[in-house]
Amino acid sequence: MNLLKLRTLLQSFLLEDIGDCDLTSSAIFPPDEVGKGVFIAKADGVISGLQIIHEAYQLLDNQVKVECFYKDGDQVNAGDTIAEVHGPIVSILGGERVILNLVQRMSGMASMTRQCVDTLNDGSIQLCDTRKTTPGLRMLEKYAVVSGGGKNHRSGLYDGVMIKDNHISFCGSISKAVASVRENIGHMVKVEVETETKEEVLEAASAGADVIMFDNRNPEEVREFVALVPKHIVTEASGGITLANLAGYADTGVDFISLGFLTHSVTSLDISLLVR
Amino acid sequence: MNLLKLRTLLQSFLLEDIGDCDLTSSAIFPPDEVGKGVFIAKADGVISGLQIIHEAYQLLDNQVKVECFYKDGDQVNAGDTIAEVHGPIVSILGGERVILNLVQRMSGMASMTRQCVDTLNDGSIQLCDTRKTTPGLRMLEKYAVVSGGGKNHRSGLYDGVMIKDNHISFCGSISKAVASVRENIGHMVKVEVETETKEEVLEAASAGADVIMFDNRNPEEVREFVALVPKHIVTEASGGITLANLAGYADTGVDFISLGFLTHSVTSLDISLLVR
Amino acid sequence: MNLLKLRTLLQSFLLEDIGDCDLTSSAIFPPDEVGKGVFIAKADGVISGLQIIHEAYQLLDNQVKVECFYKDGDQVNAGDTIAEVHGPIVSILGGERVILNLVQRMSGMASMTRQCVDTLNDGSIQLCDTRKTTPGLRMLEKYAVVSGGGKNHRSGLYDGVMIKDNHISFCGSISKAVASVRENIGHMVKVEVETETKEEVLEAASAGADVIMFDNRNPEEVREFVALVPKHIVTEASGGITLANLAGYADTGVDFISLGFLTHSVTSLDISLLVR
Amino acid sequence: MNLLKLRTLLQSFLLEDIGDCDLTSSAIFPPDEVGKGVFIAKADGVISGLQIIHEAYQLLDNQVKVECFYKDGDQVNAGDTIAEVHGPIVSILGGERVILNLVQRMSGMASMTRQCVDTLNDGSIQLCDTRKTTPGLRMLEKYAVVSGGGKNHRSGLYDGVMIKDNHISFCGSISKAVASVRENIGHMVKVEVETETKEEVLEAASAGADVIMFDNRNPEEVREFVALVPKHIVTEASGGITLANLAGYADTGVDFISLGFLTHSVTSLDISLLVR
Amino acid sequence: MNLLKLRTLLQSFLLEDIGDCDLTSSAIFPPDEVGKGVFIAKADGVISGLQIIHEAYQLLDNQVKVECFYKDGDQVNAGDTIAEVHGPIVSILGGERVILNLVQRMSGMASMTRQCVDTLNDGSIQLCDTRKTTPGLRMLEKYAVVSGGGKNHRSGLYDGVMIKDNHISFCGSISKAVASVRENIGHMVKVEVETETKEEVLEAASAGADVIMFDNRNPEEVREFVALVPKHIVTEASGGITLANLAGYADTGVDFISLGFLTHSVTSLDISLLVR
Amino acid sequence: MNLLKLRTLLQSFLLEDIGDCDLTSSAIFPPDEVGKGVFIAKADGVISGLQIIHEAYQLLDNQVKVECFYKDGDQVNAGDTIAEVHGPIVSILGGERVILNLVQRMSGMASMTRQCVDTLNDGSIQLCDTRKTTPGLRMLEKYAVVSGGGKNHRSGLYDGVMIKDNHISFCGSISKAVASVRENIGHMVKVEVETETKEEVLEAASAGADVIMFDNRNPEEVREFVALVPKHIVTEASGGITLANLAGYADTGVDFISLGFLTHSVTSLDISLLVR
Repeated sequence: MNLLKLRTLLQSFLLEDIGDCDLTSSAIFPPDEVGKGVFIAKADGVISGLQIIHEAYQLLDNQVKVECFYKDGDQVNAGDTIAEVHGPIVSILGGERVILNLVQRMSGMASMTRQCVDTLNDGSIQLCDTRKTTPGLRMLEKYAVVSGGGKNHRSGLYDGVMIKDNHISFCGSISKAVASVRENIGHMVKVEVETETKEEVLEAASAGADVIMFDNRNPEEVREFVALVPKHIVTEASGGITLANLAGYADTGVDFISLGFLTHSVTSLDISLLVR
Repeated sequence: MNLLKLRTLLQSFLLEDIGDCDLTSSAIFPPDEVGKGVFIAKADGVISGLQIIHEAYQLLDNQVKVECFYKDGDQVNAGDTIAEVHGPIVSILGGERVILNLVQRMSGMASMTRQCVDTLNDGSIQLCDTRKTTPGLRMLEKYAVVSGGGKNHRSGLYDGVMIKDNHISFCGSISKAVASVRENIGHMVKVEVETETKEEVLEAASAGADVIMFDNRNPEEVREFVALVPKHIVTEASGGITLANLAGYADTGVDFISLGFLTHSVTSLDISLLVR
Repeated sequence: MNLLKLRTLLQSFLLEDIGDCDLTSSAIFPPDEVGKGVFIAKADGVISGLQIIHEAYQLLDNQVKVECFYKDGDQVNAGDTIAEVHGPIVSILGGERVILNLVQRMSGMASMTRQCVDTLNDGSIQLCDTRKTTPGLRMLEKYAVVSGGGKNHRSGLYDGVMIKDNHISFCGSISKAVASVRENIGHMVKVEVETETKEEVLEAASAGADVIMFDNRNPEEVREFVALVPKHIVTEASGGITLANLAGYADTGVDFISLGFLTHSVTSLDISLLVR
Repeated sequence: MNLLKLRTLLQSFLLEDIGDCDLTSSAIFPPDEVGKGVFIAKADGVISGLQIIHEAYQLLDNQVKVECFYKDGDQVNAGDTIAEVHGPIVSILGGERVILNLVQRMSGMASMTRQCVDTLNDGSIQLCDTRKTTPGLRMLEKYAVVSGGGKNHRSGLYDGVMIKDNHISFCGSISKAVASVRENIGHMVKVEVETETKEEVLEAASAGADVIMFDNRNPEEVREFVALVPKHIVTEASGGITLANLAGYADTGVDFISLGFLTHSVTSLDISLLVR
Repeated sequence: MNLLKLRTLLQSFLLEDIGDCDLTSSAIFPPDEVGKGVFIAKADGVISGLQIIHEAYQLLDNQVKVECFYKDGDQVNAGDTIAEVHGPIVSILGGERVILNLVQRMSGMASMTRQCVDTLNDGSIQLCDTRKTTPGLRMLEKYAVVSGGGKNHRSGLYDGVMIKDNHISFCGSISKAVASVRENIGHMVKVEVETETKEEVLEAASAGADVIMFDNRNPEEVREFVALVPKHIVTEASGGITLANLAGYADTGVDFISLGFLTHSVTSLDISLLVR
Repeated sequence: MNLLKLRTLLQSFLLEDIGDCDLTSSAIFPPDEVGKGVFIAKADGVISGLQIIHEAYQLLDNQVKVECFYKDGDQVNAGDTIAEVHGPIVSILGGERVILNLVQRMSGMASMTRQCVDTLNDGSIQLCDTRKTTPGLRMLEKYAVVSGGGKNHRSGLYDGVMIKDNHISFCGSISKAVASVRENIGHMVKVEVETETKEEVLEAASAGADVIMFDNRNPEEVREFVALVPKHIVTEASGGITLANLAGYADTGVDFISLGFLTHSVTSLDISLLVR
């Protein structure tokens, strides 16, 4: 995670919440009233985004000192103290909501990723995210997936090619679409092709795809499709895969499974800040 | 919703996803290849955020023409065509992911809000959101709650006072905390006090709170607390209320129920873009 | 005042004045030539904005150390030393003009507010500002009014409702306008209604306004109008009130008097920086 | 005035005032309710900043059409209609306050400049501004001074050299300070030297100053100092000159008089927007 | 090229050059004085960046109409008319310098790329750029290389892995470095390894590199190294290759040659704007 | 150079290169692995931009400590150690490319300027730059020219007047153009007139130009033109002057020679970063 970019994001988020003034705390607490805040897990899960606590308080008020007791990717249990902060209470409370809103979401995504990894229970298959992230938070959400044991698919339209049905139908065939793309991109860009039938898989393989994606296929189909693909080409299953049916994809031999729900449907991990 | 601000947000979101270039589409489609895109609901729900389709395409390429068949707050069913767009395909596809990521989330929140309204089934109680929104998206998410039939709680720390336990314990009492705040704020700011006991409710009422919140109280307690509060003071129940227990709060007489899960745990409404 | 936002503002103001280079000082002083600067009041008044000295120099050059001898809201007299700074002369001079331009304006507004408070001489009436602030400086100017003993009216169109003649005439009546607004806003937003006649005052009160404003009324009218309003509704006089006629509004029983000239017509408090 | 920069400024000013939503108007007016707004002068003065009306509405809602009946620098009298706008009422009202806050200030500065020009009543002397402008608004305020018949002094520290007492005392003499600066700057930069005595004036002239400023001198001294300066060097009087004593500087032969109060102490020209 | 990003860049570049005002043209030309401008090539070369003319004038003044007679990648000769613009002269001249500064640089880079392609004269080898681009202009410069017939290497540190000597020596071996990276990145990221000896080439190949770079090798060595690499792995020569020795790399069988000088040492293509 | 502005530039440049993550280094190096980096000149030249090393690492990671052994404007020779940095390796490498891309370009421009000064070998003539700088980098490139012993021409359209043929032909004569400009600008702005004939030179001089530029004249013509200009008016030769013919302009008596190629055609000075 690029800390310089994280700081830029946090600055805009803190401005969104605080605006011109924290009306309540600035009316109650003298600026030099110091205290202690404790971030506590209220449920079991995987923590992600701890640097946010450091960087948010550094931006708001560098008198707030932060100590974290876990690192991103660690399992925490309900009741665990994740971090302690000491400093002016008005600053501790001023950053509370933004920090929790981010760390809870990221930890929720990390926890869901870990749960998927455990459910699949096949170390030879990697789980990964999609571009179905919250606008403005892609760096953070993709980082959270990694914290949970997943991998990242492409970051955006700019760092990987994904040839889908619209592209194929315009070009006339998978081969023509791949050729058209290869003519325009550099050698550091990978080309993935979306397929739904064995014929398409075979065409994608012979067209020189780096990655072949099996769209909306059940485990049996995935197993059959994988068998058609040469070893040096990466395979990916995507579409229609849920926590409920994920276990069925174990032992299909596919390399990657991409899951939109890791980032598009979030259940936050409950974390609270107690201030004393 | 301030359209000027929406445009500013969309500009940064589109840059996040597209980066320097949509490698795939720019390699496949000539810039002047035009087509039609159809936004279709894949599930039942309440739509929210339709202006995003207009504004995103206006920013990306004002040759893309947009026609919407619903308005925010409308119920849509699986299979319904929400909007049609015509224009350069490379632009239609370039905006697809950002638009869907936003409209799906907002519609998911609007749908959840509507479901809560229906579950509660008590027209005299308003549901509202909290500050547990996704950083950077507060304006959009609070708008989505309104689309679903909810109301907005304060926007941030700057436009309303919420006196919580930390503030009360520092001041020594609710009365002192309210007095301290009143001395510092203007007459256009409302003051809410968080309470957990009847004594606190009575103190908050006599201290001159505009709104009294009952924190983590069950329906029976809420009913009892409401009875202690003069009619001109607004009452709010908050904390520990879920979709499962929400119906129990009907007929408690409380004015507002605030629900963090409306925005902090999102299930997106499935919408897809078909391009022909 | 949100220091994070203050820093953002100061950064753009310093760039406006310094541009690519302070041509004069950078040609004259070696970067490591240190000196002392003294901010001195050249007239009597109320000081406001001292944190600007700290934050501006922190941004420009954190080797400049700042010591302030007053706090915002303090009375200063001509000749008083407000603050001392030590550090590289080129940095002390580089921040001079921006700091003075802000602190002089803010102190001028604080001084005018204090003068109005003294002129009115009725502790039961609060003075407040309006939205007639300098674009880009609203946070600072509203803070200055508080430094002088005033209160803040709403910050913008987003944090309070003000129903004026255009709104009323479109809806057909005050009651309809208030009802229309209430249906759309949350319970943390106050609703103010502008009135000019006794009939309007009575209608606003029965419509459930939180605040009733008497527009362009003389002291006698204000007194009469106040008598019509139930105690739990806040009253405000506004329009046509100047330093010259302000004293006449004492003892009218109104709760607030809002004064546009506190921020729209500024006489700066003269302050200078002496560098040795 | 750079319109691209004006638009950037207006965008931030409109966001400051409107925030997430104009709560009142959006609750009252349907988005397609159109109307007419008339900007009317409520006092006599010189108008400045009319492009702001065009550009602000273009940013907010390009359905609002604007027609201006004057041009910047024109004299307007109380009751004159300055401009008419037609379009959605919610947009007309949404831009009202920012437009008035700017145009009133700028017109106030233009009017004051015109009044100074008339008071001085010596066409051979030009009046000009200083860097004592409102942070963030320098481009607009310097433009307003020109609208009123004044000229602009340097824009910032970056586009002109002003050698003051601190610079001179560090270098040891005016000659050394001028030489030091000349060695570092290019040939498109003018060098001004601040002087208080005849000796300093003579030294500045022989040192090769492009402009010599007489600081805090009365008319008699200015007349004497001017006589010492060769014709090809520009002379400027500055410091301690007010509307009250300005007329005394007529016929002193000085080329420019710079007046800080043109921009640092503003009396807005009263303008109002009537919406029908 | 992402036009939304191009517009953002152009806005900051136009502000840099114009600042508060084009002092000369605004003093000379009435705003409505229209004219015609002709962009003419003053030397032979390959044109790149023509959209900049459209977008810059659209930002400055949408009354300026632009017609281009070539498209990016076209060869132009001295004397050719590249584009014509019609509109207000003050706007045509206001955008001149920024447009020329960009289009000349980009066309210079496109021309140099074309010259290298011609010099190499081996259609089986692709030329590509590096990250040695001008900070702030990477999107534009990489686009220019494509206009000239080259390909793009990775865009930044975020969209491709390049394992260099520092990484290898820290890990202990190429194999360990590749393994370490693979464990952390997703399947859409390519991994390139820098090598200098045959042993390193063989290790990189067996470690599973997607691309193997031969650093600072002469044509003979490149030919030998290529022979060691399996066909499905891409090869790249880099370092120490100049226009003078480039032809020697023909027929070496390498897939790509990356050339830093395409972007780090620019000779602008001379283009001028004639205004009538 | 304004350090506050430099920091703003560096922030955007570092984000451009690093994006969301340095994929390679973050996968290889633990965050706390420290090391040493040495910036070494690989060719002879004049160094410029050393503050960039300090400020870039301060932004990225303030644990990186920087020591420079030269100052801007110093001659360095191939093999010289320019600076040493100590700190986390991941941060040292993360800033490498942006720092080198800037310092190499700036040093290349400084070196070229020095070479021109030496070639001209006439201490009475100053060399200066033009507005033909890289968009976004004007402050840095103009600073580099000064490091090499040159001077700066105007910074942009906003801080100096340059009357060219279009302006003259519209006004009808040089005299009318100068008069028109003088009527609009302040006394701190210099006016330069472009001339091509003796008649134009004479007219410009009598019209009151501060600077007269001889456009595209050979040394003999420059000598003749200079003789026509009174001593208090600055003269400048520009256009068609290259490193090859520059020496011929010695002893022409002109005050300034402006050279576009100092900034528009860059040969970077080779500098590398060795990390141990």
